[in-house]
Order: sequence, then structure tokens, then C-alpha cells
Amino acid sequence: MHAERRERTSLAVLADLVGGCVSGDPSIAITGVAPLNLAGQDQISFLANPKMARNLADCQAAAIIVHPSLKGCVQTPLLLAENPYLAFAKILTFFEVPPHVGQGVMAGAHVHADAIIGADVTIEPGCVVCAGATVGKGTHLHPNVVIGADAIIGHDCLLHANVTVREKSVLGNRVIVQPGAVIGADGFGFAPDGEHYCKIPQVGHVVIEDDVEIGACSCIDRGTLGVTRLSRGVKVDNLVQVAHNVQVGEDTLLVSQVGIAGSTVIGKHCIFGGQSAVAGHLKIGDNVTLAGRGGISHSVDGNQSLAGLPAMPHREWLKATMTMTHLPEMRRELKQLKKQVDELQRKLAEDEN
Amino acid sequence: MHAERRERTSLAVLADLVGGCVSGDPSIAITGVAPLNLAGQDQISFLANPKMARNLADCQAAAIIVHPSLKGCVQTPLLLAENPYLAFAKILTFFEVPPHVGQGVMAGAHVHADAIIGADVTIEPGCVVCAGATVGKGTHLHPNVVIGADAIIGHDCLLHANVTVREKSVLGNRVIVQPGAVIGADGFGFAPDGEHYCKIPQVGHVVIEDDVEIGACSCIDRGTLGVTRLSRGVKVDNLVQVAHNVQVGEDTLLVSQVGIAGSTVIGKHCIFGGQSAVAGHLKIGDNVTLAGRGGISHSVDGNQSLAGLPAMPHREWLKATMTMTHLPEMRRELKQLKKQVDELQRKLAEDEN
Amino acid sequence: MHAERRERTSLAVLADLVGGCVSGDPSIAITGVAPLNLAGQDQISFLANPKMARNLADCQAAAIIVHPSLKGCVQTPLLLAENPYLAFAKILTFFEVPPHVGQGVMAGAHVHADAIIGADVTIEPGCVVCAGATVGKGTHLHPNVVIGADAIIGHDCLLHANVTVREKSVLGNRVIVQPGAVIGADGFGFAPDGEHYCKIPQVGHVVIEDDVEIGACSCIDRGTLGVTRLSRGVKVDNLVQVAHNVQVGEDTLLVSQVGIAGSTVIGKHCIFGGQSAVAGHLKIGDNVTLAGRGGISHSVDGNQSLAGLPAMPHREWLKATMTMTHLPEMRRELKQLKKQVDELQRKLAEDEN
Repeated sequence: MHAERRERTSLAVLADLVGGCVSGDPSIAITGVAPLNLAGQDQISFLANPKMARNLADCQAAAIIVHPSLKGCVQTPLLLAENPYLAFAKILTFFEVPPHVGQGVMAGAHVHADAIIGADVTIEPGCVVCAGATVGKGTHLHPNVVIGADAIIGHDCLLHANVTVREKSVLGNRVIVQPGAVIGADGFGFAPDGEHYCKIPQVGHVVIEDDVEIGACSCIDRGTLGVTRLSRGVKVDNLVQVAHNVQVGEDTLLVSQVGIAGSTVIGKHCIFGGQSAVAGHLKIGDNVTLAGRGGISHSVDGNQSLAGLPAMPHREWLKATMTMTHLPEMRRELKQLKKQVDELQRKLAEDEN
Repeated sequence: MHAERRERTSLAVLADLVGGCVSGDPSIAITGVAPLNLAGQDQISFLANPKMARNLADCQAAAIIVHPSLKGCVQTPLLLAENPYLAFAKILTFFEVPPHVGQGVMAGAHVHADAIIGADVTIEPGCVVCAGATVGKGTHLHPNVVIGADAIIGHDCLLHANVTVREKSVLGNRVIVQPGAVIGADGFGFAPDGEHYCKIPQVGHVVIEDDVEIGACSCIDRGTLGVTRLSRGVKVDNLVQVAHNVQVGEDTLLVSQVGIAGSTVIGKHCIFGGQSAVAGHLKIGDNVTLAGRGGISHSVDGNQSLAGLPAMPHREWLKATMTMTHLPEMRRELKQLKKQVDELQRKLAEDEN
Repeated sequence: MHAERRERTSLAVLADLVGGCVSGDPSIAITGVAPLNLAGQDQISFLANPKMARNLADCQAAAIIVHPSLKGCVQTPLLLAENPYLAFAKILTFFEVPPHVGQGVMAGAHVHADAIIGADVTIEPGCVVCAGATVGKGTHLHPNVVIGADAIIGHDCLLHANVTVREKSVLGNRVIVQPGAVIGADGFGFAPDGEHYCKIPQVGHVVIEDDVEIGACSCIDRGTLGVTRLSRGVKVDNLVQVAHNVQVGEDTLLVSQVGIAGSTVIGKHCIFGGQSAVAGHLKIGDNVTLAGRGGISHSVDGNQSLAGLPAMPHREWLKATMTMTHLPEMRRELKQLKKQVDELQRKLAEDEN
């Protein structure tokens, strides 16, 4: 259970919270956040895109979060912030994410006598915490979460319903896992014996560092012998596959339905678009962006924007795909040109004789 | 638990059920449905595709559901129906889907004292229904389903094992959810602060209207501030991703592994083939069909059939992809032609001198 | 719970286990397995790729598994094996996978009085085994597994946490299912009635034969009337979709995020790369390899290697995609050539006059 959410504060307090300035009456009361078109007279709204400033005129909000360049654009009091989207996130958190209040191990949860449970946790009905597992202080396990033997969950984590964390997995602090995600399943490793496949036991584990978030039904496989690692601040969307022994660098984003094959090492601050993929045993530099549905099949240096399969610079891909629909026409023209050139050659030969 | 399924009826009753006519003896007894090649002498079978009529000769079935145009094609009694496939669906439902008989809250289920539980429900062992949640009359929760706080489940719904419905989600009536699906997980929203990402709390919810079906391990994310909506009659296959703030129109089909990015609005009666995708913040008209693996990256009008990435009219895509394998040959020919044309130009210049 | 893992043996015993020979002292003690760069002085390591033999010099391992052709390449004792990777798998299994020791039905598990439970099983807390289900001897159900009514689970199976096996599904022996997988969900079958869709009840079932492994959050749908079958030895990675009525032949591999559409029949010893797909109602021969992201839309004979969408021979696809980036340049050249040829034709006509 959560404590009651914050119900009312002044515009001045919110400006202070986000390091911004007030333009207008700083004492006006704010009770929550809403979109521009829905905000009521005691709510704050925000304008992420300055191009949409014309929409501000009809806004009923008590105040609007905008970039300082828009100061004076409307009568409504403004909260001027260099990064309005970030300010919005922080104010939304202030109103809507109350601190967790531990309810302890609730009736219907199964916590092994040899598990180590920190202070102020909530472990809801149907959870199973196996022998040797650790659940850090302030962590909240929603119903039917399973924590395998000897797994370690840090403090202030939030694991939603039906999440599975297999044995020996290690989660840092403030890790959030959406429902149905699976951490530490066996990687896909089989040795052919000429006829059948022999399973290679997957005896490594998974390390999820601080401030990582993992989406619903995403799968982070354990290492074969070593470790699969999501570094600090990595954000993983829903239905993403991270195979065994993969390493993902800090603050990298994996959007929905991405697949990262085994043993690949990905740098920091990368963004992989939806349904994109990276083959196995590759090295991807820092600050690489791969467009949705892109596929990387060779190691690539950092600081570039790629698209397509096989992945190429995003601009080249845009040009190539724009030409795609002209392919049949190009083929016809090519045939026609060949005829014309043959005819020209024939004529010229005749003329010469 | 379900009641016993229907065990025996006459061909006449079945014809009545589906609004069809009998050709042959209407009193013959039917005990069930089976495919043409497996049907026994007391079962009814069906022919969806008239081109397969030659297969009817060897059929042992008591009767066959066919289109009226096939009347008299075999000796076997026929059930003549304008839409044989639909008639098959209804007769299969008659024999195989008995009405739900509520077993109440079973031992081992955890239902919060503040939850509202309708009449004739079945809530199986391991289910957790949180505070403030509503479960409508006649609804069946299979084992280990989790219903979050203040969620509302309509009447006559069927939620299979290990489904998660997060807080404040709203499901209509007769909604079916296959095992492992997740409704109401947080959308993928993070504001960059220049170095790291700050989570944007996802405080909206999900609305699933009447007669929607959601496949196994599919994920329907909650809105950021507002609503993610699947309209009446939408059918979602397995492992599908529907991101935050998406709106899907009535009777639209999302086939397996489809991904719909955030805030996109999809019309009615669309069909998205397997592994296809739509980018975020787009508007897709009614009656749009997107072939498997297609990818839409711009808003599109209704009433068209698309394919490819980026999506183009299906026919153009077929032509373009058929040309694909000729690309290396085209490139060679182009080089050859350039040589020939250069040579011709050279010769012509010589001749002129 | 598992018994303690094996802790110490001699190199000779391991050579015997894998049918290999010792080069060096056969009596040296081995306590486990580790990668070349991490192995300690009492561990065995392995060299899968002979090209990496130069890495052996610095290896601290007690012994190394290598191909017989590398005999004598270093001072370290060697275990010579024709298939070093397979020998590694077997030795890793010897040390790390102790035999299962049945703990019985544990407190907090819900096993129906009419279920049939074999000897030496472990059924962990939160599991639900429904009426008429069978759990074979030696099988281990991790927490919160749900076994539907009349399902049959063979002996020595291992079902990880939060797995769902729906009613009437049949699993053979030694089947392994990773967390969150769903076996026997309804296939995606709806009959249009002109306006809406009418659900076609999915009353068939799933058969999983011996020695199959299924990855985390993968979905194997039940047949509509008949059977969906994964034959002996099939290995399925995470987040894979196998639709209703599909048949997959022995020892075929489906890598992560693959989608197989309904009623398709796949041969033996095939390999489908990550995110690849096969359309419905097709027949795929034995020994077909489809590269990652490939898509098969027509039935194909066996013994070939395919790639691309639509799938073509892998070599052709490589050539075609290499040409892709040259498309815009080709189009420009084509236009230029047309101009030149037109000019030549004009000149030639002039000359002739």
C-alpha cells in the first residue's frame, strides 16, 4: 500500500522543486497535473513543444510549465523551466508517487525461513521468496512475484505482479520491474551431438544495476558461465529479449520488442527502436541510435544513427527505401535502354561500313 | 468449473441455431463437430472453401455445413448456410462452450475485504483481488490472476491463469484474456535530464471495452495521464505490444507480435498482420490492412491495403520485392550500359570530326 | 530443492564421461568448469574454436578440453574430444546439474483431490494443479505454476515459476519450460459475420514431446479442433509464438521472437533465426535454415538456407542487400543514361538526314 498522494501546494514550491522560476503569482494553489486541454483551474499543465504555443490561449490551467523563451506569451501564470518535460516529470512524481509505506509480509505470502527480509518491505499475497534470497529495505513485491533461491533484491525496488526473478539474480536499488517480466531464465544454449541437441547448463546469473526499469513480459537471460548485465539507468520496454552474457551500458534504452542476441556488448546512451535487433557476439559503441526494425549484424563504432537491415547510416537508408518503390520502373527502363543502345550500336556499325 | 457440455441434438436444431436450411433428413442426431477427414458418423463437419468440394465424397460425417450453392453435391445430409465458417463457429460453441457455473471464491484465493464481488463468479486458488477492485457477475478468474486496486472487471469475463490487471484498469463485459497477458503496465516514458533519464509516472489507465479478446503474454500499457483504449470487439493475438495512450477502433485485429507505439490512433475494422508495427503519434483510418512485418511510419487514410517498410500499397510492394533479387544483375547491366554509351559518344564525336 | 552438486573428480573420470582421451596426468583433480580467462587451478576449461589456440598459453586451468588435432599445443593437461563443445556441455552438467530430489507437495501449493501426482515430485508454494491433471514422477513445478484440468505432465520435467499449462495439454518426459511461458492458450480464430467477429472455440490441445525446451514468455497455442505439436527435441527460445495447429519436426530450433502462423508444418532439424517468421498453412521441408528476421511466405523444400522477406537463397539475399545502398545512385545513373541515349539517338538521326 502507498501513503496518500500529495494533495495541494503552491506554484512557488513547485518552481523550487524543479529549479525553475515563476512568472505571475507564486502563491496560487496547485492540486495536480493534467494535459493542456483537460487541465482544471487548480491544476498545472505543460507545453513540451514551443511550436504548440498557440494552444495555450484556451487553457484553463492554474499555471503552465514552459520554456523561459515563452515568458509573457499568455496571461496564465507560468513556471519557467529550461527542460519543461523534465519539470513535468518531477511535478507529476511529486503529486502522484507517494513514498512507499511498508506493510510487511502479508498473509498469503510464502517467505522461506532462510530468506533475509529488510525493514519496511511489502510482500503481498501469493509471493514466494525462496531460501537464501534477500529482499532489501523498502522494497515492494506485488502479488504472485517469485524470488528464486539466493537472489538478491536491493532496497526501494518495485516488482509488479507475476514477475519471476530466478535463483542467484542480483538487482540493485530502485529497480522497477513491470508485470510478467522474467529475470534469469536459462539462455538458449545447446551443443549439437550430430543428431540431437545437448543442453548446456546455464549456471551464470544476471546483474541488474541501480535505477534500471524492465518492461512487462521482457526476458533477461542469465549468463552461461558468467554474467548478463544491465548497467545503471538502463530502461527496457515491454516484450524485449536480452540473451545470455549480454552487457548493456549505462542509460541505454531498449524499446519494445527489441532482441539482443547472446554475448553482445552495447555501449552507454544508446537507443534501440521498437522491434530492432542486434546479432550475437558484437560490440556496439556509445551513443548509437538504431531506428525501429533496424538490424545490426556487424560491430559498430559509437556516435552514429543507423537504420535498416543490414543497418546503414540512417540518411542512406531513407534514400534507399525511397527508391524501393521505383525498382520495377527502373528495371523496365533499364531493359528499354539496353534495346536503344543495342540499336544505336547496330546503326553506327552500319554507318561505318 | 464449467457445466457439462451439450451432448446431442438434431440437425434441424442446429440449422435453426445458425439460420440455415437442411438438405436431407433433419431428424438425424448430431453429437459434436470434427474436421472432414476425422468426423465420425454422429458428428457434423464443414466445408469452408467450395474448391475443396471433391473432398466430401469420402467424408463419414452425419452431416456437412456447406454454402447453398453446393446443395446436392453429395448424398450426405447438408446444413446449407450462407457463411459456413460462421455456422461452424456457432455450432462448435453450442457443443463445446457450456455456460459458466460460478464456484464462488475458492480456497486459496485472496480477495480483499474492500473488493466488490458479483454473483456467480469463480475466483480460483492463488488469485489476488486488491482493495477497491470490482469483479462483475459471472466472471471467471483462473488460478493466480491478479486484479489491482480499484480495477473494474465487467460481467461474464474470462481471465486465464497468471494474467495481471493493474490498478484502475477497466474491463467491459465478456472480455477474454489469455494466460500471462498484462493490462495496465507503465508505459515507456522517461524525460532525459542531459545525463540520465527521469521516470515520468504513468498515472492514466486502460479501458478495454466489451467483447475484446487479448492473447497470451500481450501487453496493453496504461495511459501517461489519460487512457489507452481497446474499443468493442477488438481482438489481440499473443505477444502484442500496445503502448501508452494508444486508441484502437472497434473490431480491429492485431495479429501476433504486432507493436503499436505510443499515442497512435487506429480506426475500425483494421487488420495488422503478424510482426507488423505502427510508429507513435500517428492516425490510421478505418479498414486499413497492413501485411505481416509491414511498418507504418506516417499517418494513413482509411480503406487501403499496405505492406512493407516503409509501408506502401500492397501491390507496389509485391512488385518492388520481386525486383529485389534482380538488383545485383541490374547494377551490373547499368555499369555495362554506361560503358557502351560512353563508347558510342566517343565514336560519334570521332565521326563528326 | 536439488541435491548438492558434484564437487570433485579426476580428469580420467571426465574423459570417460565424454568418450575422450587424456593427454597428461589423468589423476589430477577437477572441481568445476570455467572460461579460459577465469579458470582456476582446479577447474577445467574448453577451447571450442581451434583458431583461438594462442589464448591457451596464459590459461591457469587444471586441464583444457580441446580437439585431438591440438594435442601437444600446451603444457597443460588436455582432455581430447572430437566435439569439445559437447564435452563441455556434458562436464558442466556433471558438476552443476545434480539430480532432482523430490520435496513432495509443499505447503501453499493447491493440488486438486482428483489430480494424479507421481512419486518424487516437487510442487512448490503457489502452484495450482487442477482436477484430472497428472504430474509424472520426478517432475519439479517451481512456485506459482498452473496446470489446467486434465493436462498431463510427463516424468522428470522442470517447469519454472509462473508457467501456465492450460487444460488437456500433454507434455512428454524431461520437458523444460522457462518462466512465464504459456502452453495451450486459445489460437487466434474468429469468423467474421459481416460486421463483428464471432469467436471460434479452440477445443483442440497441445502435445509437447520428450526433451523439448520452451523459453520464457513463449506461447504455444492449442489446436482449433486438432493438435499443435512440438516434436521430440525441439528447442524454443524466449518470446516465440507458435500458433494453432502448427507442427514442428524433431530437433528443430526456434530462436527468440520467432513467429509461426497457424497450421504450418515444419520439418526436422530446421533452424529459424531470431525474429524470423513463417506464414500460415505452409509446408517447410527438413534441414531448412532461415536467417534472423527472414520471412517465408510460400512452402519450401528441405535442405536450403534462406534469408530476407520474402525469403530467398541466403547468398542472393546477401548480394541484393549489398546493392541496396547503391539504389539512389543507380537511379541517378539511369536518368543520366537515358538523357545521353536520347541525345545520341537525336544526333544519329541528324547525321542520317
